[in-house]
Amino acid sequence: MASTGQVIRCKAAVAWEAGKPLVMEEVDVAPPQAMEVRVKILFTSLCHTDVYFWEAKGQTPLFPRIFGHEAGGIVESVGEGVTDLEPGDHVLPVFTGECKECRHCKSEESNMCDLLRINTDRGVMLNDGKSRFSIRGQPIYHFVGTSTFSEYTVVHVGCLAKINPAAPLDKVCVLSCGISTGLGATLNVAKPKKGSTVAIFGLGAVGLAAAEGARISGASRIIGVDLNANRFDEAKKFGVTEFVNPKDHDKPVHEVIAEMTNGGVDRSVECTGSVSAMISAFECVHDGWGVAVLVGVPNKDDAFKTHPMNILNEKTLKGTFFGNYKPRSDLPSVVEKYMNKELELEKFITHEVPFAEINKAFEFMLSGAGLRCIIKMDA
Amino acid sequence: MASTGQVIRCKAAVAWEAGKPLVMEEVDVAPPQAMEVRVKILFTSLCHTDVYFWEAKGQTPLFPRIFGHEAGGIVESVGEGVTDLEPGDHVLPVFTGECKECRHCKSEESNMCDLLRINTDRGVMLNDGKSRFSIRGQPIYHFVGTSTFSEYTVVHVGCLAKINPAAPLDKVCVLSCGISTGLGATLNVAKPKKGSTVAIFGLGAVGLAAAEGARISGASRIIGVDLNANRFDEAKKFGVTEFVNPKDHDKPVHEVIAEMTNGGVDRSVECTGSVSAMISAFECVHDGWGVAVLVGVPNKDDAFKTHPMNILNEKTLKGTFFGNYKPRSDLPSVVEKYMNKELELEKFITHEVPFAEINKAFEFMLSGAGLRCIIKMDA
Repeated sequence: MASTGQVIRCKAAVAWEAGKPLVMEEVDVAPPQAMEVRVKILFTSLCHTDVYFWEAKGQTPLFPRIFGHEAGGIVESVGEGVTDLEPGDHVLPVFTGECKECRHCKSEESNMCDLLRINTDRGVMLNDGKSRFSIRGQPIYHFVGTSTFSEYTVVHVGCLAKINPAAPLDKVCVLSCGISTGLGATLNVAKPKKGSTVAIFGLGAVGLAAAEGARISGASRIIGVDLNANRFDEAKKFGVTEFVNPKDHDKPVHEVIAEMTNGGVDRSVECTGSVSAMISAFECVHDGWGVAVLVGVPNKDDAFKTHPMNILNEKTLKGTFFGNYKPRSDLPSVVEKYMNKELELEKFITHEVPFAEINKAFEFMLSGAGLRCIIKMDA
Repeated sequence: MASTGQVIRCKAAVAWEAGKPLVMEEVDVAPPQAMEVRVKILFTSLCHTDVYFWEAKGQTPLFPRIFGHEAGGIVESVGEGVTDLEPGDHVLPVFTGECKECRHCKSEESNMCDLLRINTDRGVMLNDGKSRFSIRGQPIYHFVGTSTFSEYTVVHVGCLAKINPAAPLDKVCVLSCGISTGLGATLNVAKPKKGSTVAIFGLGAVGLAAAEGARISGASRIIGVDLNANRFDEAKKFGVTEFVNPKDHDKPVHEVIAEMTNGGVDRSVECTGSVSAMISAFECVHDGWGVAVLVGVPNKDDAFKTHPMNILNEKTLKGTFFGNYKPRSDLPSVVEKYMNKELELEKFITHEVPFAEINKAFEFMLSGAGLRCIIKMDA
């Protein structure tokens, strides 16, 4: 392509300061270096993690920065050493990578790549410790190696999943992060059998994706737990059959669930990040065979606390990261689940805005409206 | 047999009071009722659980009582409805049962039978709520449904594993409890792959059986953790390759192990019951794939406490009970492992006493001498 090896000037939504609306800017995007790929982003969506780091209340602020990590795009050019991808390939950028060389990548059980595991503090590329984005020579920081709120971005090849080019990028872009996280927590980690009972803690996008995984697995009962009763109607679309609002009960939620299920659910998936929900999710599974899976990210001072007898009663507690999917190896098959109509994605997409109105997506998320807002780059 | 349906008068070692030496008495053993089996015990061994309930420091005392739950014997007669066993069969009594009818027995994942799960408070048989033991008409309580410190005992058919009659009962009797508990924790729950690293917390009989499981699995490194350095020499026989005494280090033991193993062991098995050891056992496994298995029974006021990020890093925490073996379905195959010379049992047996000297077995255990003391009923 004509642009190979050249700087591309394009539009990007830049966060200049914590918590301030993004500003549409003309940015220069340098060509990809060794093991890097420059991608034309067609669709991106907004995830809580973008908002969390944009608000920068809990971490070291790093600005100016280009956020964005759920997206779909097309390879524009590739750097030295990249053999797996070529211009024109359809890809999903992912905030965590798969180098295929480290112990984690070589283990069947892990997706926590030593080289490319999520790093929210690093705002530069690994190859030279520098940014590929600049405005009039001023570097603009990357975010989790993806920075998809830009018409073009540069991503390490290990953070790109090559997918079926027939898949509609405006739908499958949501598989880059939250939806795969929840779906994989159920399908890859909790692994409910057909006919089993599953409790889902937190009915946001990730929790509903976990419920979608339970629906796909043929769970007979899917119990949604949330402090916000307004979420129940939407949750029904995702196969949630019953709803428990902890506020409606004067006993611990794990006891409520044990009574509903003759001793506990077969599987639970925790998607809130609240440590009390994590403990309830563990304590509500049945002894003998119950498995609780933790997805939500806790606060740094939290403590998970339970009586060890709960563990000795043959319950299992597992954590998961990105639904245990290896980004390059596994995401293409998740896209195929959508193509085969096994997995429904449309119901996660509640809003769409043109790129110029990206700040509206932030407003939707901050007000709790809807699940995913697709941002169309060319509109 | 001539004794079928009759009371048998025989010798039993009776605990009349908490903590006082057992007294050899002539007891009457009633015939087995529906679903019960009367067993002639040939060999029994002493386990910490006997001593714990004999000391009765932490529970409601129940005396007079006949303790004993690790044993091997031969079926003398069977009660109504018993079709799986007949006189002459060789059996191992087990403190927890398998009714084969309940949800737990029907689940592939559980061995925590609803009907026959261990009950340390009940001193009578399920069928009529009464004891089968008496001395001049005074009932003597049972212990965990086995009461093997008697020449004859009555056991629910669901608590008897029928084994290969060629197996030497003076060796395989130790599979009734502790050795299977540790062995199964590794083989059935931790499931280390060949070449992996395993940490064992607590090098008593259960921990060494867990190490034996790691040896059988082909672990490349087996790290034993114990506060008593004297145990290391014996542990070498069980395949333990390295030893960590937490007292020798000024940093937490999980950090010591992480340094020894480039980030953590692949599997850990906790066999002490100390809650701090449980937490260390969890925190010392590698992120991405590490599995920690808890075996030791905690105190009732303990709290298992860890930062939830330890869980989210794709570590797994599992509890196990009796090594996840279903007593009737699975113990015969453990006996076969011994018969095939895959499993070594001789090294667990450090003492032998005649039945008349059973109190010596208590002295050995209380002084920490050796692992298992076999009590020969006919000597």
